[in-house]
Amino acid sequence: MDSRATFITFATSDLDAARSFYVDGLGWTPTLDVPEEILFFQVGHGLMLGLFYAPKFAEDLGGPARIVTPVNGVTLSHNVSSPAEVDRVIAQALAAGANLVKPPQQAAFGGYHGHFADPNGVIWEVAHNPGWAVDADGTVRLDAIEE
Amino acid sequence: MDSRATFITFATSDLDAARSFYVDGLGWTPTLDVPEEILFFQVGHGLMLGLFYAPKFAEDLGGPARIVTPVNGVTLSHNVSSPAEVDRVIAQALAAGANLVKPPQQAAFGGYHGHFADPNGVIWEVAHNPGWAVDADGTVRLDAIEE
Repeated sequence: MDSRATFITFATSDLDAARSFYVDGLGWTPTLDVPEEILFFQVGHGLMLGLFYAPKFAEDLGGPARIVTPVNGVTLSHNVSSPAEVDRVIAQALAAGANLVKPPQQAAFGGYHGHFADPNGVIWEVAHNPGWAVDADGTVRLDAIEE
Repeated sequence: MDSRATFITFATSDLDAARSFYVDGLGWTPTLDVPEEILFFQVGHGLMLGLFYAPKFAEDLGGPARIVTPVNGVTLSHNVSSPAEVDRVIAQALAAGANLVKPPQQAAFGGYHGHFADPNGVIWEVAHNPGWAVDADGTVRLDAIEE
């Protein structure tokens, strides 16, 4: 098994709220939108974010015992190029209906970040990390974190 | 905020178990490994998977109330090119110490898939989806799912 993730999928209680936030609020375009089932957005090179209606998510995993929302113990990060852009993106998300989790501030890794939760509880970190870089071939460098 | 995820980070109770599974079991090479703190693997073009020691994950989000493991309500997918490869990857993961969640079988989306959980409960779907394709520029197509 090579180190490759192609989809990130979250059990989602309210797909309409998700659609309202990501599509109407942030202006994202779904790759696929099946009402009361799943909403897919492309969130990277070869990478999809799936928001899967929670009962169907559970069914797909094999049974109702696995229905668990809101999700917890996971964050998605959205890296940007400056602290000011962190502030701007967090403000945009809040205006679109997100809930603030951590106000933008200096981060332990040496940069600047803040967190918001989407209407279904999916937490996004918005971060400026001066040591983070992506080469043209997609290789990620984390030099500053290693200091 | 454009539709872009750069890190997927999981609260992880046992980093040693994670290291044993991904590094020793699957043969993955960490981009960064800080014992008792975080383990990073590159899992896509410009995409990192972070396994963040749970108490530090919680602290980073702002407090102990957010310590929640195992994670739930989320899956990562690893798409492969044939049903036989699904079987092979699931078998490899189980041999490396994963727990079976859903045995490989025909999937509702028209392909073939199975699920395993890593030693910290992170669930991976291993899937063959005949309608999934990634163009050279990274654009994902889900044509078969739309049928």
